Amino acid sequence: MLTLYDDPISGNGYKIRLLLAFLKAPYTYRPLDILKQETRTPEFLRINPNGRIPVLILEDGTALAESNAILCYLAEGTDWLPADRLARAQVLSWMFFEQYSHEPNVATLRFWTHLPELTPAQELQKPLKKRDGEAALKLMDNRLSSKDWLVGTTPSVADIALYAYTHVAAEGGFTLGDYPAVSAWLRRMQTLPGYIGIGDLPT
Amino acid sequence: MLTLYDDPISGNGYKIRLLLAFLKAPYTYRPLDILKQETRTPEFLRINPNGRIPVLILEDGTALAESNAILCYLAEGTDWLPADRLARAQVLSWMFFEQYSHEPNVATLRFWTHLPELTPAQELQKPLKKRDGEAALKLMDNRLSSKDWLVGTTPSVADIALYAYTHVAAEGGFTLGDYPAVSAWLRRMQTLPGYIGIGDLPT
Repeated sequence: MLTLYDDPISGNGYKIRLLLAFLKAPYTYRPLDILKQETRTPEFLRINPNGRIPVLILEDGTALAESNAILCYLAEGTDWLPADRLARAQVLSWMFFEQYSHEPNVATLRFWTHLPELTPAQELQKPLKKRDGEAALKLMDNRLSSKDWLVGTTPSVADIALYAYTHVAAEGGFTLGDYPAVSAWLRRMQTLPGYIGIGDLPT
Repeated sequence: MLTLYDDPISGNGYKIRLLLAFLKAPYTYRPLDILKQETRTPEFLRINPNGRIPVLILEDGTALAESNAILCYLAEGTDWLPADRLARAQVLSWMFFEQYSHEPNVATLRFWTHLPELTPAQELQKPLKKRDGEAALKLMDNRLSSKDWLVGTTPSVADIALYAYTHVAAEGGFTLGDYPAVSAWLRRMQTLPGYIGIGDLPT
């Protein structure tokens, strides 16, 4: 049985829960609280030295970190990861865009709303992250204005990776109504068989 | 023939040049100057709407962005990207670590030395990026203290991705001598057949 270490507020962890739901794959759920530093304990640092969730523990005990690497591992051999060399690379291109140009802006502004107060460095970064997050959403909107899914003609792990923090971007101060093609794509994701919401935790 | 859009100061572009050198693959080189905003012109934004180099133009004209996605595309079917499902995911895990936990700290502090002056937000971020970059280097050092390469027993695109900015980390104020296993790994990379330095540009 797979085991997932996660924090229920994490969109990165939600990516994995969402794909596992689409794949109807059973797993054991181990929630941790980032804000209580539960991902920085000596026990957890032995599992992931980078002190971050999500981490997927495979059947043989191997710990796999980095949400988008976990998505690719789980999707291998399914419709969620194309077999074609170029399509695979385009899926990865969107996933690296997500971690470099989208998550540090769209997700971070949402996460900061959970902090008791911001540091002066964070206060100065807020408008820059708003600007860069809006640019990332605009880029997605342009792509999705002529395509139903980010790569090819069916949903892939690139869509899951970008869905996770985009669909809760309003919590970080973004106005999703400004991005009509993104909004339509979010609704398409939500109608896929097996879809679960970010708050739908395993029992 | 492949075409590579790059800026010679970019470690992300060097990743591609280095793999192409190892693979002995010919390509056309198109250098741009980030500091002169040459990656934000209307012409270049039609090639990569995200306004970043490197971009690889394939034989059929397709533009592929994101350095680590380009590495995976070029490495497919070679010894630089394992065929095994778990090993592939572990390679990707290190590459996502590179883009999220390493590059924004180790590479950004180096890039900032090229700017005429830093903004107040950047000044406040400098010590945080130093701290987080040191944590990334320490994590690599722990991994490499018992392994010659990041994944498996041969070099992969994970090593290329992390080599690019690690080997010039001193330019951003990091002390590589503090990381002996990283330093030994850098030397191993430099002895691989076909190795080129970051300043070795195509003629």
